[in-house]
Amino acid sequence: MILKARKIPIKVGNKFIMVINQRTAHMIDVQPGDRLSVKNGSKRITCIIDVTENGEFKDNEAGLYIETWNRLGAKHGDKLSVSLAEKPAANMYIREKLEGVELNKEKIDAIVKDIVNDDLSDVEMTYFVSACYIHGLSDEETTNLTKSIAEHGNRIKVNKKIVADKHCIGGVPGNRTTMIVIPIIAAAGITIPKTSSRAITSPSGTADTMEVLCNVTNDAKKLKKILEKVGAFITWGGGVDLAAADDRLIRVRHPMSLDPKGMMLASIMAKKYAVGSTHVLIDIPYGPQVKTKTLQKANELKKDFERLGKMLGMTVKVIATEGNAPIGRGIGPVLEAIDVMQVLENDKNAPADLRKKAIYMAGELLELCGKSKKGQGGKLAASLLASGAALKKMNDIIDAQGRKKLPPVGKLTYAAIAKKSGKITAIDNKLISHVARVAGAPKNSGAGIAINKNLGDRVVKGDTLYTIYAENKERLHNAIEESGRNVYTIN
Amino acid sequence: MILKARKIPIKVGNKFIMVINQRTAHMIDVQPGDRLSVKNGSKRITCIIDVTENGEFKDNEAGLYIETWNRLGAKHGDKLSVSLAEKPAANMYIREKLEGVELNKEKIDAIVKDIVNDDLSDVEMTYFVSACYIHGLSDEETTNLTKSIAEHGNRIKVNKKIVADKHCIGGVPGNRTTMIVIPIIAAAGITIPKTSSRAITSPSGTADTMEVLCNVTNDAKKLKKILEKVGAFITWGGGVDLAAADDRLIRVRHPMSLDPKGMMLASIMAKKYAVGSTHVLIDIPYGPQVKTKTLQKANELKKDFERLGKMLGMTVKVIATEGNAPIGRGIGPVLEAIDVMQVLENDKNAPADLRKKAIYMAGELLELCGKSKKGQGGKLAASLLASGAALKKMNDIIDAQGRKKLPPVGKLTYAAIAKKSGKITAIDNKLISHVARVAGAPKNSGAGIAINKNLGDRVVKGDTLYTIYAENKERLHNAIEESGRNVYTIN
Repeated sequence: MILKARKIPIKVGNKFIMVINQRTAHMIDVQPGDRLSVKNGSKRITCIIDVTENGEFKDNEAGLYIETWNRLGAKHGDKLSVSLAEKPAANMYIREKLEGVELNKEKIDAIVKDIVNDDLSDVEMTYFVSACYIHGLSDEETTNLTKSIAEHGNRIKVNKKIVADKHCIGGVPGNRTTMIVIPIIAAAGITIPKTSSRAITSPSGTADTMEVLCNVTNDAKKLKKILEKVGAFITWGGGVDLAAADDRLIRVRHPMSLDPKGMMLASIMAKKYAVGSTHVLIDIPYGPQVKTKTLQKANELKKDFERLGKMLGMTVKVIATEGNAPIGRGIGPVLEAIDVMQVLENDKNAPADLRKKAIYMAGELLELCGKSKKGQGGKLAASLLASGAALKKMNDIIDAQGRKKLPPVGKLTYAAIAKKSGKITAIDNKLISHVARVAGAPKNSGAGIAINKNLGDRVVKGDTLYTIYAENKERLHNAIEESGRNVYTIN
Repeated sequence: MILKARKIPIKVGNKFIMVINQRTAHMIDVQPGDRLSVKNGSKRITCIIDVTENGEFKDNEAGLYIETWNRLGAKHGDKLSVSLAEKPAANMYIREKLEGVELNKEKIDAIVKDIVNDDLSDVEMTYFVSACYIHGLSDEETTNLTKSIAEHGNRIKVNKKIVADKHCIGGVPGNRTTMIVIPIIAAAGITIPKTSSRAITSPSGTADTMEVLCNVTNDAKKLKKILEKVGAFITWGGGVDLAAADDRLIRVRHPMSLDPKGMMLASIMAKKYAVGSTHVLIDIPYGPQVKTKTLQKANELKKDFERLGKMLGMTVKVIATEGNAPIGRGIGPVLEAIDVMQVLENDKNAPADLRKKAIYMAGELLELCGKSKKGQGGKLAASLLASGAALKKMNDIIDAQGRKKLPPVGKLTYAAIAKKSGKITAIDNKLISHVARVAGAPKNSGAGIAINKNLGDRVVKGDTLYTIYAENKERLHNAIEESGRNVYTIN
């Protein structure tokens, strides 16, 4: 059967959807959610069908959303040859997982492959996430999921015996240790390729913060060269597509904030596996306002990571750290980058908490990689920082990735003032992140919040608690309004 | 914040979606899947957000799919006032069900209400279906789900002590007993309101077959009048929206052919509950080609229905019948209507198997309602048929609903010939249904298949096994091609 192409100028997010009217659907005998194999010249893909009213689309007209349009290289009125397509094998395997069947390597691989090829609908992916959430994933399933995610994405391989990495299960504002730990480790002569994420719901991801200093969208080929030359990079993971399947699953996890443990583990470890990591340090902040609520939960997760690491052939060390207060001073790309550079430059105004945590983590990783004896890693890390070796390495990384001029901080500011004297007994991290986002972070890189007083500090009525930075009046106004609630608790 | 309305001329199926570009999403600080409260003049709804590329949509432009456009009564360029909206309570309750929590009446009711109001996305509904499938539904949950589905749809109430109903868990081609059983029961003086479905994947639903005889799209007010006057109707359930929530859930169950038992039970019984049924007969055909594969499974289901009936205050009887062969001769709306009318008219050519099954079922239901003694129902049913009382009642129903002239059967035919002599040992019901659909059923009402020889019949090489009817050449050609596979097995 031949249908005529018509563009629908909307992106629907990594899936191939074709819209036809009811009469056309009946002619072909398909229901919404069924699949058609669609050919345009030499290009062929499988599309999932949506059905609209007869009046809106002509008979034999095929509406193609942007992803479908582009993949078929379609032009208006192109004749598309369509035929019924079977459900992909993944559909059946997802059904098996719903039934509680443990999936073997081949089945998990088929599911991941179909996700990466955009052959599954959101509804099908949601069934997969639900089944993994409710039935859980066995250690073998988690291991195979990790490997499949890595193998169906890009990979970067260097010929080194030791390849280090670090990861933090996010949630703590301002926690930019990565940009200090990586140059310290690289300065110690250890290869450390680091991919980071951009902010989704936070005011800045490490990739957003790094981006104010240099380019972070690099392909695998370029990253391999940088790694061979400098021994490290700090880049945006999404730009190199190390875990394409994972990015697609996140879309259907978001509406329920659903984080099936096996998927979360696989998501993190796949990116390490893809760059050939051998020694990995993982930081799990815990506390009522971060993802992991208690030390006990952090310790359970620690065991999961260590077991998965073993099955993947990696040496994994997990540390649990308190996550009750923001770390560093800045929240937002430029403000955070200033903190990081102050630490690397041994500036006497550098935020002490950020420096301390970065040295602790770098020390642990140095010990894990065998660069220093047990208990001596912190000293080595501090000396690499004090000597300027870490700063030099950071500058090499920035130059290799493509240095940028640091943008200014937002020119509009608002100081939040203590309404009474006392001790700061709590800071609402979620609210502070929200205010920073409303102020414009991370898109407006100079926007965000500077912490003037932190958890445990004593303040006098009239002291500045924190300062909002914005790049335009509307944003500042909205942020001030949102900050009206109790960001700080003073007692 | 104010956005400008732009129509997207596509129906997305009972949900309110608004599309904005990435910059606009960032300004408002929303992700795909998040919700906005949207106001246009006096109309306000909650929309779920999709995000497209900046180039495709202007900043501050809001793309509204047909459902959203209509509900907001929007015109091009209308100024929509938008603000962040919380997730509905149902989102949290679905999450609880994913965790394995048993949901109380209030929570189930909140979910059903949000489904009916189109406040849940497909992804959220899929999580609900998954959770119900994997964790199952308790008897209390199933009962509450049934009541909620009925209470959030239209209802028809008549002041009668006994209100009968019958239901068949589909899958057997040509099985049109409803259109014979209903007039028999009504002829016995029992009130019997019957809502039926249209075909989704079959060549005809009872509503499609009834529709060639009379109008089947009637609202609740008109149906109540017909019921009071004639004592029965046979109408399309979708036209009166007795179980709106159910129709919406089916869309996300389709891609996985997922039929969580509690949902299936609730779906069927909600429609009985909505019309105030007191006595219900349920037919469960079983066999390798129908939904219920074995007698054992049919008996399990029987207990489920009877238990649910008791909790709803209904008297439910379940019969399990063999479902290996088509019943009657015709498959497709007009062909089936001819079968039904022949039985009612006591035509000597009427298909004996259809007549027999209808009398058996009507007899069971007469006994259940106390109209005849145990073992005597069949006799009463047969006499109501033989006397012409059932035919008269059917004509009253047809006239009350609005009689139509029976369309002709498809003028193009093809006879499928036995390639060898022997006994028919199997008929592929699924394939025969598919061929009838490809021939044009149910949209082309005269299209379909007439069964000339049935399961167990002895045939001689050259005998006509079945005849395909179509209304146009292309359809006939395609149907002949599809029937090339082994519809009949002769040994």
